[in-house]
Amino acid sequence: MNFKKILLVSGTHGNEINPIWAVNEFKRKKKSIDNDIEYKYIIGNPLAYEKGLRYVDIDLNRSFKAQEDNTQNSKNNYEINRANFLVEQFGINGHDPCEVAIDLHTTTANMGTSIVMYGRRRKDFCLAALLQHKFGLPIYLHEKDKKQTGFLVESWPCGLVIEIGAVAQNFYDPGIINRFLIIISSLRDEINKLRNKIITLPNQLIVHIHQGSIDYPREGNGEISGLIHPDRIYQDWIPIQKGDPLFLDYEDNVFRYQDEEIMWPVFIGEVAYKEKNIAMSYTRKEVIFLSNEWVEDFLES
Amino acid sequence: MNFKKILLVSGTHGNEINPIWAVNEFKRKKKSIDNDIEYKYIIGNPLAYEKGLRYVDIDLNRSFKAQEDNTQNSKNNYEINRANFLVEQFGINGHDPCEVAIDLHTTTANMGTSIVMYGRRRKDFCLAALLQHKFGLPIYLHEKDKKQTGFLVESWPCGLVIEIGAVAQNFYDPGIINRFLIIISSLRDEINKLRNKIITLPNQLIVHIHQGSIDYPREGNGEISGLIHPDRIYQDWIPIQKGDPLFLDYEDNVFRYQDEEIMWPVFIGEVAYKEKNIAMSYTRKEVIFLSNEWVEDFLES
Repeated sequence: MNFKKILLVSGTHGNEINPIWAVNEFKRKKKSIDNDIEYKYIIGNPLAYEKGLRYVDIDLNRSFKAQEDNTQNSKNNYEINRANFLVEQFGINGHDPCEVAIDLHTTTANMGTSIVMYGRRRKDFCLAALLQHKFGLPIYLHEKDKKQTGFLVESWPCGLVIEIGAVAQNFYDPGIINRFLIIISSLRDEINKLRNKIITLPNQLIVHIHQGSIDYPREGNGEISGLIHPDRIYQDWIPIQKGDPLFLDYEDNVFRYQDEEIMWPVFIGEVAYKEKNIAMSYTRKEVIFLSNEWVEDFLES
Repeated sequence: MNFKKILLVSGTHGNEINPIWAVNEFKRKKKSIDNDIEYKYIIGNPLAYEKGLRYVDIDLNRSFKAQEDNTQNSKNNYEINRANFLVEQFGINGHDPCEVAIDLHTTTANMGTSIVMYGRRRKDFCLAALLQHKFGLPIYLHEKDKKQTGFLVESWPCGLVIEIGAVAQNFYDPGIINRFLIIISSLRDEINKLRNKIITLPNQLIVHIHQGSIDYPREGNGEISGLIHPDRIYQDWIPIQKGDPLFLDYEDNVFRYQDEEIMWPVFIGEVAYKEKNIAMSYTRKEVIFLSNEWVEDFLES
């Protein structure tokens, strides 16, 4: 694969506005570059952005399904139409084909600057390894979650999510914007180095593999009855072990982590996941051993 | 006035959910009390809360207008109807009259725990003085702003807003909830002491008086073109003087504060005020001298 174009998607969730600002700022300031890799820019969900909402009909970042869905319901669905448009326009077989998609997100959880990837594609590992090597970013590998499918980057041969937090929805935070600018500014150069084999891959990659999610304690009617425990809130990536507090309810009952295995929680208290019945997700640490042959994979189609 | 009932309103903005949790927790845990002052509890905007939005049609906390508005437009407006209902139900001449209204809010700005009051009513000053004396809370006195009227607490003989931040909309933060619980738990006792003249008022009160608001730099089409400067974000209540940076635009131009007079900015970058063209509000410090005669005012109707 000859890497010519990287698609930078911001505003896939319309109320995550810092990446949109960062991309606009980057476009206005962009300097001449030493390589021929081009960025294409698109706001994922412009209508939701205009309205200040995460989405209009359904979550756009769950709308990229492999199989065709031609029911009337889906024809009237803004995000399904938008997902189809993005693939038709910028997909590898689209009008303006991009080889890599980078989807820029924020979270209200205290994730810092992190990478989210879906499945175990070698191309994704190559790119993630470079970014982890350069910036030390933690990686959340979301896999084996049947309830959550249809992510944007899966529709491209190579793609990662950059996820930065904590920041409120619709709130401009110059510190968060600056973090996006650092990633955006170096991505093209890193890929160019990889393309020209100027750098070798690190031989291992530390990833946090999705193990499952837990919901808040709830009443019979579905209302949340226990909150993230004060010792747990904003403590993303900090491992928990048996007995550690997770939730605290109205009556000061503490709900504790019960399993023997140590877990690394992520997306703790993310606002947008309440409707998905997710209070936090558990991950297990794993080392992925990379081989320089994978670079060949990366470069071939 | 014989203080018998305090109205505690949470969720006047439906996406400010921490006060709703705090009030529910307080109701469940409430202990026997030594006085006969009763709390009444109401969610200000239940439909917006259900939808996770600030409001449905218009801002409820700008919908309590003195004059009657019987246009068809207002009859179909959820918040105007809700404002009328709240006054009819809990207003001083309502079915279940409350003498004091306390309206509980959160902000994405870094206001800490603060009091917002509207106009210079002696009853409000008495109550605010007690809270400032006990907890050291800063007070924002919002007055002479013709664009912003119709606040909830103005429809009661005495009323204050408790405003706590920074916290994201729709995000449960146990630390923020705890701050509300501290205020709610002591309010009744403080008012009881005042009612029974067990405490004397402090003889002065420091308030921050609203002087005006400034908008973000914007493009001709209305789009925001400069953000709160990194040195200014989250710096609520910290005074600014001539030359201090306010905004930073795409091209790294710095917009600076130009006036000679020192100002104390508040609600810096509040998400919900972007649509009101407010990036921050300026206040001037003023000392209000209280007299113990005001307590008589407080107690008489």
